[in-house]
Amino acid sequence: MNRRIELDKIIIDKDEEIALRNRAVIDAAGVLALNLIGSPGCGKTTLLEATIEALQSPTDKRPPLRVGVIEGDVQCTFDRDRILAAGAAATQIETDGACRLDAAMVERALAEVPLDELDILFIENVGNLVCPSGPVLGEHLKVAVVSTPEGDEKPAKYPALFVRSDIVLLTKSDLLPYVDFDLARAEEDCRKLNHKVTVLALAAKSGEGMAAWIDSLRELRETHRGS
Amino acid sequence: MNRRIELDKIIIDKDEEIALRNRAVIDAAGVLALNLIGSPGCGKTTLLEATIEALQSPTDKRPPLRVGVIEGDVQCTFDRDRILAAGAAATQIETDGACRLDAAMVERALAEVPLDELDILFIENVGNLVCPSGPVLGEHLKVAVVSTPEGDEKPAKYPALFVRSDIVLLTKSDLLPYVDFDLARAEEDCRKLNHKVTVLALAAKSGEGMAAWIDSLRELRETHRGS
Repeated sequence: MNRRIELDKIIIDKDEEIALRNRAVIDAAGVLALNLIGSPGCGKTTLLEATIEALQSPTDKRPPLRVGVIEGDVQCTFDRDRILAAGAAATQIETDGACRLDAAMVERALAEVPLDELDILFIENVGNLVCPSGPVLGEHLKVAVVSTPEGDEKPAKYPALFVRSDIVLLTKSDLLPYVDFDLARAEEDCRKLNHKVTVLALAAKSGEGMAAWIDSLRELRETHRGS
Repeated sequence: MNRRIELDKIIIDKDEEIALRNRAVIDAAGVLALNLIGSPGCGKTTLLEATIEALQSPTDKRPPLRVGVIEGDVQCTFDRDRILAAGAAATQIETDGACRLDAAMVERALAEVPLDELDILFIENVGNLVCPSGPVLGEHLKVAVVSTPEGDEKPAKYPALFVRSDIVLLTKSDLLPYVDFDLARAEEDCRKLNHKVTVLALAAKSGEGMAAWIDSLRELRETHRGS
Protein backbone atom coordinates (compact mmCIF):
# COMPACT_ATOMS: atom_id res chain seq x y z
CA MET A 1 0.00 0.00 0.00
CA ASN A 2 2.86 2.44 0.67
CA ARG A 3 3.88 2.45 -2.96
CA ARG A 4 0.29 3.27 -3.86
CA ILE A 5 0.17 6.17 -1.41
CA GLU A 6 3.42 7.53 -2.86
CA LEU A 7 2.02 7.32 -6.38
CA ASP A 8 -1.18 9.01 -5.24
CA LYS A 9 0.87 11.85 -3.74
CA ILE A 10 2.74 12.35 -7.02
CA ILE A 11 -0.59 12.45 -8.89
CA ILE A 12 -2.10 14.94 -6.42
CA ASP A 13 0.92 17.26 -6.65
CA LYS A 14 0.74 17.11 -10.44
CA ASP A 15 -3.01 17.91 -10.25
CA GLU A 16 -2.36 21.00 -8.13
CA GLU A 17 0.24 22.20 -10.59
CA ILE A 18 -2.29 21.92 -13.44
CA ALA A 19 -4.98 23.59 -11.31
CA LEU A 20 -2.68 26.58 -10.81
CA ARG A 21 -2.18 26.77 -14.57
CA ASN A 22 -5.96 26.62 -15.11
CA ARG A 23 -6.43 29.42 -12.61
CA ALA A 24 -3.90 31.59 -14.43
CA VAL A 25 -5.72 31.06 -17.74
CA ILE A 26 -9.09 31.88 -16.15
CA ASP A 27 -7.66 34.98 -14.41
CA ALA A 28 -6.04 36.22 -17.60
CA ALA A 29 -9.50 36.22 -19.22
CA GLY A 30 -10.97 38.11 -16.23
CA VAL A 31 -13.53 35.38 -15.61
CA LEU A 32 -15.01 34.32 -12.24
CA ALA A 33 -14.94 30.50 -11.96
CA LEU A 34 -17.13 28.43 -9.63
CA ASN A 35 -16.89 24.68 -8.99
CA LEU A 36 -20.42 23.30 -8.40
CA ILE A 37 -20.54 20.13 -6.28
CA GLY A 38 -23.54 18.08 -5.17
CA SER A 39 -25.28 14.68 -5.27
CA PRO A 40 -26.81 13.29 -8.44
CA GLY A 41 -30.21 14.91 -8.88
CA CYS A 42 -29.69 17.76 -6.39
CA GLY A 43 -30.60 20.22 -9.14
CA LYS A 44 -27.24 21.56 -10.34
CA THR A 45 -28.15 21.70 -14.04
CA THR A 46 -31.66 23.09 -13.42
CA LEU A 47 -30.08 25.77 -11.23
CA LEU A 48 -27.63 26.64 -13.99
CA GLU A 49 -30.44 26.92 -16.56
CA ALA A 50 -32.32 29.34 -14.30
CA THR A 51 -29.10 31.24 -13.45
CA ILE A 52 -28.17 31.71 -17.12
CA GLU A 53 -31.66 33.02 -17.83
CA ALA A 54 -31.64 35.39 -14.84
CA LEU A 55 -28.15 36.80 -15.59
CA GLN A 56 -29.29 37.68 -19.09
CA SER A 57 -32.84 38.74 -18.29
CA PRO A 58 -33.99 41.75 -20.36
CA THR A 59 -36.09 42.92 -17.39
CA ASP A 60 -32.94 43.30 -15.24
CA LYS A 61 -31.60 46.84 -15.63
CA ARG A 62 -28.05 45.74 -14.90
CA PRO A 63 -25.90 44.64 -17.84
CA PRO A 64 -26.29 40.98 -18.79
CA LEU A 65 -23.47 38.64 -17.70
CA ARG A 66 -22.18 36.04 -20.14
CA VAL A 67 -21.99 32.50 -18.77
CA GLY A 68 -19.99 29.44 -19.80
CA VAL A 69 -20.33 25.96 -18.37
CA ILE A 70 -17.97 22.99 -18.25
CA GLU A 71 -20.19 19.97 -17.65
CA GLY A 72 -18.73 16.94 -15.89
CA ASP A 73 -20.47 13.59 -16.13
CA VAL A 74 -19.44 9.94 -15.93
CA GLN A 75 -20.85 9.59 -19.42
CA CYS A 76 -23.45 11.16 -21.76
CA THR A 77 -23.99 14.77 -22.86
CA PHE A 78 -27.55 15.37 -21.55
CA ASP A 79 -26.48 18.25 -19.33
CA ARG A 80 -24.36 20.07 -21.91
CA ASP A 81 -27.30 19.95 -24.31
CA ARG A 82 -29.56 21.51 -21.65
CA ILE A 83 -27.05 24.32 -21.03
CA LEU A 84 -26.65 25.02 -24.76
CA ALA A 85 -30.45 25.17 -25.08
CA ALA A 86 -30.48 27.69 -22.19
CA GLY A 87 -28.24 29.95 -24.30
CA ALA A 88 -24.81 29.65 -22.70
CA ALA A 89 -21.48 28.38 -23.98
CA ALA A 90 -20.93 24.79 -22.84
CA THR A 91 -18.55 21.90 -23.22
CA GLN A 92 -18.82 18.38 -21.84
CA ILE A 93 -16.25 16.30 -20.03
CA GLU A 94 -17.08 12.60 -19.92
CA THR A 95 -14.95 11.08 -17.15
CA ASP A 96 -15.42 7.51 -18.41
CA GLY A 97 -16.25 6.13 -14.98
CA ALA A 98 -14.22 8.48 -12.78
CA CYS A 99 -16.23 9.87 -9.86
CA ARG A 100 -14.97 13.47 -10.09
CA LEU A 101 -13.33 15.96 -12.41
CA ASP A 102 -9.60 16.50 -12.17
CA ALA A 103 -7.51 19.51 -13.16
CA ALA A 104 -6.19 17.89 -16.35
CA MET A 105 -9.73 17.26 -17.63
CA VAL A 106 -10.62 20.89 -16.93
CA GLU A 107 -7.43 22.07 -18.67
CA ARG A 108 -8.53 20.29 -21.87
CA ALA A 109 -12.07 21.67 -21.56
CA LEU A 110 -10.80 25.24 -21.03
CA ALA A 111 -9.29 25.09 -24.52
CA GLU A 112 -12.81 24.55 -25.91
CA VAL A 113 -14.58 27.32 -23.97
CA PRO A 114 -14.56 30.90 -25.39
CA LEU A 115 -13.14 32.30 -22.14
CA ASP A 116 -12.55 35.81 -23.54
CA GLU A 117 -16.27 36.17 -24.21
CA LEU A 118 -17.36 35.15 -20.69
CA ASP A 119 -17.96 36.81 -17.33
CA ILE A 120 -18.68 33.72 -15.23
CA LEU A 121 -17.59 30.11 -15.73
CA PHE A 122 -19.37 27.30 -13.90
CA ILE A 123 -17.66 23.93 -13.62
CA GLU A 124 -20.43 21.42 -12.87
CA ASN A 125 -18.67 18.49 -11.23
CA VAL A 126 -19.78 14.85 -11.47
CA GLY A 127 -22.85 14.21 -9.27
CA ASN A 128 -21.16 13.09 -6.05
CA LEU A 129 -20.94 14.44 -2.50
CA VAL A 130 -17.70 12.65 -1.60
CA CYS A 131 -15.03 12.45 -4.33
CA PRO A 132 -15.05 16.02 -5.69
CA SER A 133 -14.61 17.60 -2.21
CA GLY A 134 -10.86 17.78 -2.08
CA PRO A 135 -9.26 18.45 -5.45
CA VAL A 136 -8.98 21.96 -6.81
CA LEU A 137 -9.55 22.45 -10.52
CA GLY A 138 -8.53 26.08 -10.83
CA GLU A 139 -11.79 27.61 -9.56
CA HIS A 140 -12.07 30.71 -7.37
CA LEU A 141 -14.90 29.36 -5.25
CA LYS A 142 -16.46 26.03 -4.35
CA VAL A 143 -20.27 25.94 -4.27
CA ALA A 144 -21.92 22.98 -2.50
CA VAL A 145 -25.45 22.12 -3.55
CA VAL A 146 -27.86 20.17 -1.29
CA SER A 147 -31.51 19.68 -2.19
CA THR A 148 -34.15 19.66 0.54
CA PRO A 149 -35.38 16.09 -0.20
CA GLU A 150 -31.86 14.81 0.62
CA GLY A 151 -32.25 15.75 4.28
CA ASP A 152 -30.85 18.46 6.55
CA GLU A 153 -28.15 16.21 8.03
CA LYS A 154 -26.09 16.13 4.82
CA PRO A 155 -23.57 18.87 5.84
CA ALA A 156 -22.90 17.01 9.11
CA LYS A 157 -22.59 13.65 7.30
CA TYR A 158 -20.29 14.86 4.50
CA PRO A 159 -18.15 17.53 6.24
CA ALA A 160 -15.18 17.21 3.86
CA LEU A 161 -17.12 19.11 1.22
CA PHE A 162 -18.77 21.69 3.47
CA VAL A 163 -15.60 22.67 5.30
CA ARG A 164 -14.17 23.71 1.93
CA SER A 165 -17.28 25.36 0.41
CA ASP A 166 -17.55 29.13 0.13
CA ILE A 167 -21.24 28.99 -0.72
CA VAL A 168 -23.89 26.39 0.13
CA LEU A 169 -27.10 26.39 -1.91
CA LEU A 170 -30.09 24.61 -0.37
CA THR A 171 -32.08 23.85 -3.53
CA LYS A 172 -35.68 22.71 -4.15
CA SER A 173 -36.98 24.90 -1.32
CA ASP A 174 -40.38 24.61 -3.05
CA LEU A 175 -40.51 21.02 -1.69
CA LEU A 176 -40.05 22.13 1.95
CA PRO A 177 -43.77 21.59 2.79
CA TYR A 178 -43.49 17.92 1.69
CA VAL A 179 -40.14 16.83 3.15
CA ASP A 180 -38.44 16.82 6.57
CA PHE A 181 -35.77 19.50 6.24
CA ASP A 182 -34.89 22.03 8.92
CA LEU A 183 -33.29 25.01 7.14
CA ALA A 184 -31.93 26.41 10.42
CA ARG A 185 -30.23 23.12 11.32
CA ALA A 186 -28.61 22.78 7.89
CA GLU A 187 -27.37 26.37 7.99
CA GLU A 188 -26.04 26.01 11.53
CA ASP A 189 -24.15 22.82 10.61
CA CYS A 190 -22.62 24.55 7.55
CA ARG A 191 -21.53 27.48 9.70
CA LYS A 192 -19.94 25.17 12.29
CA LEU A 193 -17.76 23.75 9.51
CA ASN A 194 -16.95 27.13 7.92
CA HIS A 195 -18.00 30.28 9.78
CA LYS A 196 -17.50 32.44 6.67
CA VAL A 197 -19.86 30.39 4.45
CA THR A 198 -22.79 31.98 2.59
CA VAL A 199 -25.91 29.80 2.80
CA LEU A 200 -28.84 30.46 0.48
CA ALA A 201 -32.14 28.55 0.13
CA LEU A 202 -33.75 28.69 -3.29
CA ALA A 203 -35.91 26.92 -5.86
CA ALA A 204 -34.98 27.23 -9.53
CA LYS A 205 -38.40 25.89 -10.49
CA SER A 206 -40.51 28.47 -8.64
CA GLY A 207 -37.92 31.26 -8.69
CA GLU A 208 -38.01 31.52 -4.87
CA GLY A 209 -34.67 32.82 -3.51
CA MET A 210 -33.16 33.21 -6.99
CA ALA A 211 -32.83 37.01 -6.70
CA ALA A 212 -30.49 36.74 -3.70
CA TRP A 213 -28.34 34.16 -5.52
CA ILE A 214 -28.12 36.33 -8.64
CA ASP A 215 -27.21 39.37 -6.51
CA SER A 216 -24.47 37.35 -4.80
CA LEU A 217 -23.08 36.21 -8.13
CA ARG A 218 -23.02 39.76 -9.52
CA GLU A 219 -21.33 41.02 -6.35
CA LEU A 220 -18.73 38.22 -6.45
CA ARG A 221 -18.06 39.01 -10.08
CA GLU A 222 -17.51 42.71 -9.24
CA THR A 223 -15.27 41.96 -6.23
CA HIS A 224 -13.31 39.54 -8.39
CA ARG A 225 -12.79 42.06 -11.21
CA GLY A 226 -11.61 44.63 -8.70
CA SER A 227 -9.10 42.29 -7.06
CA MET B 1 0.38 5.54 -14.57
CA ASN B 2 0.99 1.92 -15.63
CA ARG B 3 2.41 1.06 -12.24
CA ARG B 4 -0.71 2.51 -10.63
CA ILE B 5 -3.00 0.42 -12.85
CA GLU B 6 -1.01 -2.70 -11.94
CA LEU B 7 -1.33 -1.92 -8.25
CA ASP B 8 -5.06 -1.26 -8.66
CA LYS B 9 -5.44 -4.65 -10.35
CA ILE B 10 -3.70 -6.39 -7.44
CA ILE B 11 -5.99 -4.56 -5.00
CA ILE B 12 -9.13 -5.47 -7.01
CA ASP B 13 -8.17 -9.17 -7.20
CA LYS B 14 -7.53 -9.19 -3.45
CA ASP B 15 -10.95 -7.53 -2.90
CA GLU B 16 -12.71 -10.24 -4.90
CA GLU B 17 -10.97 -12.93 -2.90
CA ILE B 18 -12.21 -11.34 0.34
CA ALA B 19 -15.70 -10.89 -1.16
CA LEU B 20 -15.84 -14.63 -1.87
CA ARG B 21 -14.85 -15.33 1.74
CA ASN B 22 -17.58 -12.94 2.96
CA ARG B 23 -20.11 -14.72 0.76
CA ALA B 24 -19.14 -18.10 2.23
CA VAL B 25 -19.60 -16.77 5.79
CA ILE B 26 -23.00 -15.29 4.89
CA ASP B 27 -24.10 -18.49 3.13
CA ALA B 28 -22.98 -20.66 6.04
CA ALA B 29 -25.35 -18.68 8.27
CA GLY B 30 -28.20 -19.09 5.73
CA VAL B 31 -28.64 -15.33 5.43
CA LEU B 32 -29.78 -13.38 2.34
CA ALA B 33 -27.47 -10.37 1.81
CA LEU B 34 -28.35 -7.26 -0.20
CA ASN B 35 -26.00 -4.38 -1.11
CA LEU B 36 -28.00 -1.12 -1.10
CA ILE B 37 -26.57 1.61 -3.37
CA GLY B 38 -27.86 5.13 -4.03
CA SER B 39 -27.11 8.86 -3.83
CA PRO B 40 -26.85 10.69 -0.51
CA GLY B 41 -30.38 11.43 0.65
CA CYS B 42 -32.18 9.03 -1.69
CA GLY B 43 -33.84 7.46 1.33
CA LYS B 44 -31.84 4.28 1.96
CA THR B 45 -31.94 4.48 5.77
CA THR B 46 -35.60 5.55 5.92
CA LEU B 47 -36.43 2.60 3.63
CA LEU B 48 -34.54 0.25 5.95
CA GLU B 49 -36.39 1.57 9.01
CA ALA B 50 -39.74 0.93 7.30
CA THR B 51 -38.56 -2.47 5.99
CA ILE B 52 -37.45 -3.65 9.44
CA GLU B 53 -40.81 -2.62 10.89
CA ALA B 54 -42.78 -4.32 8.09
CA LEU B 55 -40.80 -7.58 8.26
CA GLN B 56 -41.55 -7.81 11.98
CA SER B 57 -45.09 -6.47 11.92
CA PRO B 58 -47.42 -8.27 14.37
CA THR B 59 -50.32 -7.74 11.92
CA ASP B 60 -48.51 -9.82 9.26
CA LYS B 61 -49.56 -13.47 9.62
CA ARG B 62 -46.27 -14.70 8.14
CA PRO B 63 -43.38 -15.33 10.57
CA PRO B 64 -41.29 -12.25 11.33
CA LEU B 65 -37.91 -12.02 9.57
CA ARG B 66 -34.87 -10.91 11.53
CA VAL B 67 -32.84 -8.13 9.94
CA GLY B 68 -29.25 -6.99 10.38
CA VAL B 69 -27.67 -3.92 8.82
CA ILE B 70 -24.06 -3.01 8.07
CA GLU B 71 -24.05 0.78 7.71
CA GLY B 72 -21.42 2.41 5.50
CA ASP B 73 -20.68 6.11 5.85
CA VAL B 74 -17.72 8.38 5.23
CA GLN B 75 -17.93 9.30 8.89
CA CYS B 76 -20.45 9.47 11.78
CA THR B 77 -22.85 6.87 13.18
CA PHE B 78 -26.21 8.64 12.61
CA ASP B 79 -27.56 5.85 10.40
CA ARG B 80 -26.52 2.97 12.66
CA ASP B 81 -28.28 4.67 15.56
CA ARG B 82 -31.47 4.99 13.48
CA ILE B 83 -31.35 1.28 12.59
CA LEU B 84 -30.76 0.24 16.20
CA ALA B 85 -33.73 2.40 17.24
CA ALA B 86 -35.83 0.60 14.58
CA GLY B 87 -35.10 -2.67 16.36
CA ALA B 88 -32.54 -4.42 14.14
CA ALA B 89 -28.96 -5.51 14.69
CA ALA B 90 -26.57 -2.92 13.24
CA THR B 91 -22.91 -2.11 12.97
CA GLN B 92 -21.25 0.95 11.46
CA ILE B 93 -18.32 1.13 9.05
CA GLU B 94 -16.75 4.58 8.86
CA THR B 95 -14.71 4.67 5.63
CA ASP B 96 -12.66 7.70 6.74
CA GLY B 97 -13.12 9.53 3.46
CA ALA B 98 -13.38 6.58 1.07
CA CYS B 99 -16.32 6.89 -1.33
CA ARG B 100 -17.50 3.27 -1.11
CA LEU B 101 -17.31 0.15 1.01
CA ASP B 102 -14.80 -2.54 0.12
CA ALA B 103 -14.84 -6.24 0.88
CA ALA B 104 -12.23 -5.97 3.66
CA MET B 105 -14.35 -3.40 5.53
CA VAL B 106 -17.37 -5.71 5.25
CA GLU B 107 -15.29 -8.68 6.44
CA ARG B 108 -14.45 -6.80 9.64
CA ALA B 109 -18.09 -5.74 10.09
CA LEU B 110 -19.37 -9.31 9.59
CA ALA B 111 -17.46 -10.33 12.70
CA GLU B 112 -19.58 -7.84 14.69
CA VAL B 113 -22.99 -8.85 13.31
CA PRO B 114 -24.89 -11.79 14.92
CA LEU B 115 -25.26 -13.56 11.55
CA ASP B 116 -26.65 -16.78 13.04
CA GLU B 117 -29.61 -14.86 14.43
CA LEU B 118 -30.52 -13.17 11.12
CA ASP B 119 -32.62 -13.90 8.04
CA ILE B 120 -31.69 -10.88 5.93
CA LEU B 121 -28.57 -8.71 5.99
CA PHE B 122 -28.59 -5.28 4.34
CA ILE B 123 -25.27 -3.63 3.53
CA GLU B 124 -26.03 0.09 3.15
CA ASN B 125 -23.21 1.44 1.01
CA VAL B 126 -21.80 4.99 1.23
CA GLY B 127 -24.19 7.50 -0.39
CA ASN B 128 -22.83 7.58 -3.94
CA LEU B 129 -24.16 6.60 -7.38
CA VAL B 130 -20.73 6.11 -8.99
CA CYS B 131 -18.04 4.49 -6.84
CA PRO B 132 -19.96 1.57 -5.26
CA SER B 133 -21.24 0.29 -8.64
CA GLY B 134 -18.46 -2.14 -9.47
CA PRO B 135 -16.99 -3.85 -6.43
CA VAL B 136 -18.66 -6.90 -4.91
CA LEU B 137 -18.69 -7.17 -1.13
CA GLY B 138 -20.05 -10.69 -0.77
CA GLU B 139 -23.73 -9.84 -1.31
CA HIS B 140 -26.24 -11.98 -3.22
CA LEU B 141 -28.02 -9.05 -4.86
CA LYS B 142 -27.37 -5.40 -5.65
CA VAL B 143 -30.27 -3.02 -5.02
CA ALA B 144 -30.08 0.43 -6.63
CA VAL B 145 -32.09 3.19 -4.99
CA VAL B 146 -33.19 6.33 -6.87
CA SER B 147 -35.55 8.89 -5.33
CA THR B 148 -38.09 10.68 -7.52
CA PRO B 149 -36.74 14.21 -6.79
CA GLU B 150 -33.39 13.13 -8.34
CA GLY B 151 -34.96 12.86 -11.79
CA ASP B 152 -35.97 10.01 -14.11
CA GLU B 153 -32.78 10.25 -16.23
CA LYS B 154 -30.55 8.86 -13.47
CA PRO B 155 -30.45 5.24 -14.77
CA ALA B 156 -29.42 6.52 -18.22
CA LYS B 157 -26.81 8.87 -16.71
CA TYR B 158 -25.24 6.33 -14.34
CA PRO B 159 -25.53 3.04 -16.28
CA ALA B 160 -22.58 1.33 -14.53
CA LEU B 161 -24.74 0.82 -11.45
CA PHE B 162 -28.00 -0.07 -13.17
CA VAL B 163 -26.50 -2.64 -15.49
CA ARG B 164 -25.39 -4.57 -12.38
CA SER B 165 -28.48 -4.08 -10.20
CA ASP B 166 -30.93 -6.93 -9.63
CA ILE B 167 -33.53 -4.63 -8.11
CA VAL B 168 -34.16 -0.90 -8.60
CA LEU B 169 -36.26 0.91 -6.01
CA LEU B 170 -37.78 4.24 -7.06
CA THR B 171 -38.26 5.83 -3.64
CA LYS B 172 -40.23 8.88 -2.42
CA SER B 173 -43.10 8.11 -4.81
CA ASP B 174 -45.23 10.30 -2.49
CA LEU B 175 -43.41 13.31 -4.03
CA LEU B 176 -44.42 12.40 -7.62
CA PRO B 177 -47.12 15.12 -7.76
CA TYR B 178 -44.47 17.79 -6.99
CA VAL B 179 -41.50 16.72 -9.12
CA ASP B 180 -40.83 15.92 -12.79
CA PHE B 181 -40.34 12.17 -12.82
CA ASP B 182 -41.70 9.80 -15.44
CA LEU B 183 -41.92 6.35 -13.80
CA ALA B 184 -42.35 4.62 -17.18
CA ARG B 185 -39.21 6.26 -18.59
CA ALA B 186 -37.09 5.32 -15.57
CA GLU B 187 -38.34 1.72 -15.66
CA GLU B 188 -37.76 1.45 -19.40
CA ASP B 189 -34.19 2.77 -19.06
CA CYS B 190 -33.48 0.28 -16.25
CA ARG B 191 -34.83 -2.58 -18.37
CA LYS B 192 -32.68 -1.56 -21.36
CA LEU B 193 -29.62 -1.91 -19.12
CA ASN B 194 -30.73 -5.20 -17.51
CA HIS B 195 -33.80 -6.92 -18.91
CA LYS B 196 -34.14 -9.14 -15.82
CA VAL B 197 -34.30 -6.24 -13.34
CA THR B 198 -37.17 -5.86 -10.86
CA VAL B 199 -38.30 -2.21 -10.61
CA LEU B 200 -40.53 -1.11 -7.74
CA ALA B 201 -41.85 2.37 -6.91
CA LEU B 202 -42.52 3.03 -3.25
CA ALA B 203 -42.64 5.57 -0.44
CA ALA B 204 -41.42 4.53 3.01
CA LYS B 205 -43.08 7.61 4.51
CA SER B 206 -46.63 6.96 3.26
CA GLY B 207 -46.31 3.17 2.99
CA GLU B 208 -47.26 3.26 -0.71
CA GLY B 209 -45.73 0.30 -2.59
CA MET B 210 -44.13 -1.14 0.56
CA ALA B 211 -46.23 -4.35 0.46
CA ALA B 212 -44.82 -5.36 -2.95
CA TRP B 213 -41.25 -4.72 -1.74
CA ILE B 214 -41.81 -6.78 1.42
CA ASP B 215 -43.36 -9.61 -0.63
CA SER B 216 -40.33 -9.56 -2.97
CA LEU B 217 -37.94 -9.70 -0.04
CA ARG B 218 -39.78 -12.65 1.54
CA GLU B 219 -39.83 -14.48 -1.80
CA LEU B 220 -36.12 -13.84 -2.37
CA ARG B 221 -35.39 -15.10 1.10
CA GLU B 222 -37.37 -18.31 0.42
CA THR B 223 -35.74 -18.90 -2.98
CA HIS B 224 -32.35 -18.29 -1.41
CA ARG B 225 -32.96 -20.81 1.42
CA GLY B 226 -34.05 -23.41 -1.10
CA SER B 227 -31.01 -22.95 -3.34
